Amino acid sequence: MKTLAQSYRVDLGSRSYDIHIESGCLPQIGERLTSLFGTASRCLIVSNDVVAPLYLQQVQAALSAAGWSVATHILPDGEKNKNMQQWSLMMDALMAAKLSRNEPIIALGGGVVGDMTGFAASCYRRGIPFIQIPTTVLAQVDSSVGGKTAINHPHGKNMIGAFYQPKLVWIDPQVLNTLAPREVRAGLAEVIKYGLIRDANYFTWLNDNITSLLALDETIISQTILRSCAHKAEVVMADETEQGQRALLNLGHTFGHAIESMTHYTTYLHGEAVSLGTIMAARLSVQLGFAAQGLEEKVKQSLQAAELPTEIPAFSTDAWLDAMGHDKKNVGSKIRYILLRDVGDAFIAEDVKDDDIRTLIASFL
Amino acid sequence: MKTLAQSYRVDLGSRSYDIHIESGCLPQIGERLTSLFGTASRCLIVSNDVVAPLYLQQVQAALSAAGWSVATHILPDGEKNKNMQQWSLMMDALMAAKLSRNEPIIALGGGVVGDMTGFAASCYRRGIPFIQIPTTVLAQVDSSVGGKTAINHPHGKNMIGAFYQPKLVWIDPQVLNTLAPREVRAGLAEVIKYGLIRDANYFTWLNDNITSLLALDETIISQTILRSCAHKAEVVMADETEQGQRALLNLGHTFGHAIESMTHYTTYLHGEAVSLGTIMAARLSVQLGFAAQGLEEKVKQSLQAAELPTEIPAFSTDAWLDAMGHDKKNVGSKIRYILLRDVGDAFIAEDVKDDDIRTLIASFL
Repeated sequence: MKTLAQSYRVDLGSRSYDIHIESGCLPQIGERLTSLFGTASRCLIVSNDVVAPLYLQQVQAALSAAGWSVATHILPDGEKNKNMQQWSLMMDALMAAKLSRNEPIIALGGGVVGDMTGFAASCYRRGIPFIQIPTTVLAQVDSSVGGKTAINHPHGKNMIGAFYQPKLVWIDPQVLNTLAPREVRAGLAEVIKYGLIRDANYFTWLNDNITSLLALDETIISQTILRSCAHKAEVVMADETEQGQRALLNLGHTFGHAIESMTHYTTYLHGEAVSLGTIMAARLSVQLGFAAQGLEEKVKQSLQAAELPTEIPAFSTDAWLDAMGHDKKNVGSKIRYILLRDVGDAFIAEDVKDDDIRTLIASFL
Repeated sequence: MKTLAQSYRVDLGSRSYDIHIESGCLPQIGERLTSLFGTASRCLIVSNDVVAPLYLQQVQAALSAAGWSVATHILPDGEKNKNMQQWSLMMDALMAAKLSRNEPIIALGGGVVGDMTGFAASCYRRGIPFIQIPTTVLAQVDSSVGGKTAINHPHGKNMIGAFYQPKLVWIDPQVLNTLAPREVRAGLAEVIKYGLIRDANYFTWLNDNITSLLALDETIISQTILRSCAHKAEVVMADETEQGQRALLNLGHTFGHAIESMTHYTTYLHGEAVSLGTIMAARLSVQLGFAAQGLEEKVKQSLQAAELPTEIPAFSTDAWLDAMGHDKKNVGSKIRYILLRDVGDAFIAEDVKDDDIRTLIASFL
């Protein structure tokens, strides 16, 4: 078994932690956790009904072998379950497991599992240690790093949550081999995003290696995970609670979240919606004169090469504005858009007019 | 109208804030908030169905006059409503009010309103500004300061919450004049607590002035609020997230919470349960040889002078241990007890045995 061990330290003072990336590292989580906590005690693993049959036993056995007393909690898979009801059941599981303030909760799964488990970790006894074992491309390259945790509200995605950093992110790229190809592609939308917002060379490298990436070539995917995590971590270290530049990571997300909301989280995976939102952000950048005409095509070609959707679904302009949180009663309400001057050069636009958004949406109808 | 304006700065770096104490200051909250935020925008006031009829209109008018657009949300009164269901409704109200990340939520009420609103503030959009306008003795001397926010879980009090500091604590002692005498007395349990854990002179002063305090003499109550808030703030500044000494503030609370839980939050007010718990902590301190024989009586006399309950209710030993979170399956599970060496001298005891607690409980049967 070829192993590529790489580590990245996220430096956030007392909230610092390691991102460890290594092919086949899953069975070593027990020892690592014991060394992190000094001694083994109780822990709770949260997973979902797709990931658990594949990897829960292995992780549980690794922890038990290292002396941990392991409780488990299994969520139903899918973004539609990232809600208060499921989160409440997770709090019940924490209460039943009687975890103390120093005992960890472990997220084994994708973005939904990580986001919900992190929010539960932040709230249970006002905060317990939180470990991320991400099992999807999206979670390994993006959502497991940076401490954004949340659940959805019926009227908005990620509206209820906390900034709460994990104590460790433990990434085994081999687990991606059981991932549905559609999930692999969806994760690549966030990878391409890093290139678009801050690293034109990375964008080019990704385009050159997209076939190997889609095939989950071990060397290429490991490099992609490390480079993506490093980008994410750099942004988070500079602006942990999104007072400014961290918002650049939301490229494509204002439109993407609207698409997820309008389709009730049933039609597109998050990364697919981000792909669509990124196309829209690119066109808006051109429309407003910030970027040259060819930008939209460059963005589109890259996403298409990753086999991501690029056809914007048709909804009424009112539906779009409503889903994006435009408040008709408050003229002063502002939405910040992340726009591009070019590949690798994103910025926050505070003063986009409603009419500009209407024009943009009309151009896709 | 006699006004006594006093202010205390809680210094927590970027999370610092003022506690402002002034008789009759309620109508000035609008101007103060505008000066704090630079400009008036939207806000949401959360209150309950006892406080709202008395003070909501006044606060709302003050904010409107200063240019604020005010939404309101009213909770049913009482600790039994400090639950996930009511908290979920509060999140709905925040969504309906469409507050942005920089617009404040204001708690107008006692400890329950403050704890729940603070937790909602910490979670909505991963954190918005939070203002405390406490209207009970307990909230004015204790719970509005220090950033402990939470809701209860059916299996434990304050089990779901966050450390989240307010941006301002705005205290008008005049509002206490409409408070039920029982609520006044309950608040004094936490005041006496400060004397017991860290200030023997304050304990003596409180005993000397207890009649004036119960009568809500304006000078005495204002001095009591300031001195209590200063004690609370000093402890919080030294240990914001309760890694150590902050736990001393929990004197009487392990037993008190158990009493609240065993009586389903319907028999005793929180302060009354703390009074009972404090008697138990005093007796345990004597039983274990940490304090001289007379301590329990000194504590009891002081609480009785404040007209607080001192007769411990009868429950089986198993019910007590269960309510205090003793885990029979995990012999190693530890509960930290706050004990007294003398008035003004508290400490954290880590190694109290289950059998010691059994002996203590038996002594009250």
